[in-house]
Amino acid sequence: MNLENNIPKEVHTKVFPLRKKSPFFSVIGAGPGDLELITLKAIKALGTADVVLYDALVNPELLEYAPNAEHIFVGKRKGCYAYQQEQINELIVNRARTHGHVVRLKGGDPFVFGRGAEEMEYAADHGIPTKMIPGISSCIAVPSAQNIPVTKRNSAESFWVITGTTKAHKLSQDVHLAAKSSATVVILMGMSKLPEIVALFKKEGKSEIPVAIIQNGTREDEKIGIGTIDTILEVVQVEKLANPAIIIIGEVVNHRASIQKVVESNIYELSSEV
Amino acid sequence: MNLENNIPKEVHTKVFPLRKKSPFFSVIGAGPGDLELITLKAIKALGTADVVLYDALVNPELLEYAPNAEHIFVGKRKGCYAYQQEQINELIVNRARTHGHVVRLKGGDPFVFGRGAEEMEYAADHGIPTKMIPGISSCIAVPSAQNIPVTKRNSAESFWVITGTTKAHKLSQDVHLAAKSSATVVILMGMSKLPEIVALFKKEGKSEIPVAIIQNGTREDEKIGIGTIDTILEVVQVEKLANPAIIIIGEVVNHRASIQKVVESNIYELSSEV
Repeated sequence: MNLENNIPKEVHTKVFPLRKKSPFFSVIGAGPGDLELITLKAIKALGTADVVLYDALVNPELLEYAPNAEHIFVGKRKGCYAYQQEQINELIVNRARTHGHVVRLKGGDPFVFGRGAEEMEYAADHGIPTKMIPGISSCIAVPSAQNIPVTKRNSAESFWVITGTTKAHKLSQDVHLAAKSSATVVILMGMSKLPEIVALFKKEGKSEIPVAIIQNGTREDEKIGIGTIDTILEVVQVEKLANPAIIIIGEVVNHRASIQKVVESNIYELSSEV
Repeated sequence: MNLENNIPKEVHTKVFPLRKKSPFFSVIGAGPGDLELITLKAIKALGTADVVLYDALVNPELLEYAPNAEHIFVGKRKGCYAYQQEQINELIVNRARTHGHVVRLKGGDPFVFGRGAEEMEYAADHGIPTKMIPGISSCIAVPSAQNIPVTKRNSAESFWVITGTTKAHKLSQDVHLAAKSSATVVILMGMSKLPEIVALFKKEGKSEIPVAIIQNGTREDEKIGIGTIDTILEVVQVEKLANPAIIIIGEVVNHRASIQKVVESNIYELSSEV
């Protein structure tokens, strides 16, 4: 549900001169998609927002927590950006000066490949006080929701979260080292680089390592494919998996199978207990 | 506030035979310490709990979300474990069978070095349906709360979260590779290994890399020390920093300074806007 058209903009503008506010900028994490994976702190901050800038990975229903704010969509729609990053930065500063509390609501956690840090820095450079409220990060919670822990005793004593596509549109050099490590490797935005990733792990003799790919994690249209370094490219083809997806490489993927049979026969719904 | 003594156990026992419940086990993340960094989903699940097992890193005030449940402390107190892991596992299975919905409430996220996966597996092996609800992980949120983003364009295109102390009480071999990588390195439970970690980064010619150490992150008694690989051991001594602490190594630490002056002069309190 998109409330953008329901905002009583006229009323808002009329009220504004009577209620001059100090400029403030909050960067807030909305979590991975499931509406209930937002924190109390985020909800509270949204309630004080005068303007909310949100992007495509944010569930628009969350805007209901900011009923009196102006809601501006600044994400990507049909492959096109509504706003360039520079325009978003300007919007933050200008709206903070004219309206007061600007909230930048981002999917997942704003400090995990979210450019939240850059936006805070821009606001701070323009003298606007800023605050960040963390969100449940997709890199941990999307595997979790599929019963894949990023760490597990005897399986992984570390996890490494890497963006598949760097600023230069190349596979991060870190993936080479990751393939040598014992870390659980979590790759975001990496589907177009999957053949290259698979080749790197094969080179390290890791053909048998389990791999999971989760598309639209924690959403209703979630899809998962499970395989190994050897088989995952075929799995992707058969299951038609594509971005937005998270790639998880490591023994921890096997944890899922070890409890899945009980989860699937789960006849006890939490909600029935309320 | 510990409600353990306020539980009307008699009432609970009396009601029990009238309301036989199916066994169920939830592993729930409580977030890093700040009471408001818990999710709606976690609060909802706590409300349906019949038993809550919680540990030392969980703020006991959160138990108020489960007013009708039995609350059992299973963490470490004064250096001693109240329960061994095997005993906790047994408690989960036995209480689920006799009481119904057992919640294991853990600090941070249960799948980040939390042994949550092992407990789920144990329950599943005993035929008990399980569910996991993620929490805000300290490994991302504690640096965040100090304005240190684990990733930032041009500073870090990946982050690697490592436990300082492995099962064998040795420094993880992954730290050797991490020191070679361009990742932001986040080390949990690593204070006793700090001299060894510093030596590894020096060996890679990274003496100038910024380091932050945050003790009791997001809590009222939070402390932070900032330095470089070259100076951090002295900082730790001067500031008397100790576990529970998180070590963050990487250029992203400098982000903090770039916005800190505005944050410190922050005269706009979110709460005043409610």
